[in-house]
Amino acid sequence: MRIAIDAMGGDHAPGCNVEGALLAAAEWEDIEIILVGDEEKLSPLLKEKPKRISIRHASEVISGEDEPTKAVRRKKDSSMVVAGRMVKEGEAEAMISSGNTGALMTTGLLVVGRMEGIARPALAPMIPTLDDVGVLALDLGANMDAKPEHLAQYAMMGSVYRSKVHGMAEPRVGLLNVGTEAAKGNELTKAAYPLLENLSGIRFVGNVEARDVLMGACDVLVCDGFAGNILLKTLEGTAGAMFALLKQQFSKSLKTKLGAAMLMPELRSLKGKLDYKEHGGAPLLGLNGLVVKGHGSSDGNAVKNAVRQARIAIQSGLVDSIAKEISGK
Amino acid sequence: MRIAIDAMGGDHAPGCNVEGALLAAAEWEDIEIILVGDEEKLSPLLKEKPKRISIRHASEVISGEDEPTKAVRRKKDSSMVVAGRMVKEGEAEAMISSGNTGALMTTGLLVVGRMEGIARPALAPMIPTLDDVGVLALDLGANMDAKPEHLAQYAMMGSVYRSKVHGMAEPRVGLLNVGTEAAKGNELTKAAYPLLENLSGIRFVGNVEARDVLMGACDVLVCDGFAGNILLKTLEGTAGAMFALLKQQFSKSLKTKLGAAMLMPELRSLKGKLDYKEHGGAPLLGLNGLVVKGHGSSDGNAVKNAVRQARIAIQSGLVDSIAKEISGK
Repeated sequence: MRIAIDAMGGDHAPGCNVEGALLAAAEWEDIEIILVGDEEKLSPLLKEKPKRISIRHASEVISGEDEPTKAVRRKKDSSMVVAGRMVKEGEAEAMISSGNTGALMTTGLLVVGRMEGIARPALAPMIPTLDDVGVLALDLGANMDAKPEHLAQYAMMGSVYRSKVHGMAEPRVGLLNVGTEAAKGNELTKAAYPLLENLSGIRFVGNVEARDVLMGACDVLVCDGFAGNILLKTLEGTAGAMFALLKQQFSKSLKTKLGAAMLMPELRSLKGKLDYKEHGGAPLLGLNGLVVKGHGSSDGNAVKNAVRQARIAIQSGLVDSIAKEISGK
Repeated sequence: MRIAIDAMGGDHAPGCNVEGALLAAAEWEDIEIILVGDEEKLSPLLKEKPKRISIRHASEVISGEDEPTKAVRRKKDSSMVVAGRMVKEGEAEAMISSGNTGALMTTGLLVVGRMEGIARPALAPMIPTLDDVGVLALDLGANMDAKPEHLAQYAMMGSVYRSKVHGMAEPRVGLLNVGTEAAKGNELTKAAYPLLENLSGIRFVGNVEARDVLMGACDVLVCDGFAGNILLKTLEGTAGAMFALLKQQFSKSLKTKLGAAMLMPELRSLKGKLDYKEHGGAPLLGLNGLVVKGHGSSDGNAVKNAVRQARIAIQSGLVDSIAKEISGK
């Protein structure tokens, strides 16, 4: 199977992407990786010509500051758009990019193309949970004002993803809400609840409060992009703030420094547990092909993990399964 | 000044309310406290007749399980509704309750009454920040689908509260959003942004992302009740989960137990810092009188702190100031 990597996307590009490609190609013999980007920059990074890795030249780069729609429309020879086109045209089964999130969503929509029957594609990162299983949350993308029917489609797509890619038998779908009772919520969640309840093919476990998400109350969490962003950013902010405070408190005296040193491995492990960036790439679901978004700060290992994810998704026939589920066939 | 306390409201009622009243009456000579509730239960708790505390009998109690609107309409002789009526009729300048939040908001609306010109009253708790100043967030109440004009009124009321009750010269007002740029957000925040920008009498500092709230990016945070709930519950959930994880990790071995013991005071102080329940009661703003919501788990000290808050708010003429600001006079 062929996987295109937007080699110029990400804070540590192109190094992280080349490194990730090398690690992945060494591990899996059934994949072929195409690094898309500036050949002059990429070639020197591939000293000996490695097996199962090739370069596809693309002369332009979409940066983090570029306005998404404009950039995708104008930079037709950018590494991101070229990788998208490869998926569209069947030259690659999946693409991975750690670049500009908005531009990648636009590439998904305008270049790869929306799947028939899907109203809005969704970005679906994993949010960490205490039991280390994690919850797939969608949409965490640009769709700020979702409609109830969008949430229902998210529920279907998220369920298929967890069962195909994560091997879950009956993933529990929860609706992010302000209380567990069916009648709770805003107009959106109150209208979405009965839709989800009556949706065949998913296991709806009802409303899930924000504080129970971390406890692993569900395997798929559906929400609009606005609420999802508030959830994820608060989690990130609180965890970050707590570590900053712990650090500050723990350097107060010799005694606290000693205590902190004794706990360092445990503190590090906790930090890793709560860092959603460590939980792999986020698939963009609802497109005519597979697009995986790596975190902007991805290193070689993170890119390799995104390849692992893409590989399982391709093997499992994820995109076809979603198409079947949506068309009701 | 006279402050009515719903003596039967709260998980530890009536004990916590009597204790709080005793502490408050001992500290401030300019207040009179009326404990509203079952005289037979309250009298024995007031051994010697204390100065500046009286009992107003109310035969019914609204419990945490009661459906708010029904309960307020039917239990006309409940401690909560009687306290509300005292504010309405000028027998008390403020009321405090740690009971059923929904019922208290309903009591505010139906018994105390909405202030002229206010579309929606707002519940405004303090959310902790790393610098210990805290941010007043509104609305954290029942108004799940706020309109842009509601957010503008929240901004005004929140600013008046922080300047009158907390003595802040020019409180910074932020709009909870998914990015800092003016064009970011959902339909609500995009429409609210220009309203807030053009509102005289407040200091609008723009959009504030969820992860920056804890960092103290603003003094007043405006949001709809849904987003506010997601923010607060995620904060609560993440902090709680982290402490649970720390506890679990720290009891792994003798070494970690020892390390944890050395850090215990620092860990406790951190826990207190992030516990919004410790940051006093939440005012219900936009009513024809002062209503303060204590946390359900309030103890005597928390009730005393709510009295402190109510006392400052009365002294500073909070309700009149809000009325003036809203009517534009």
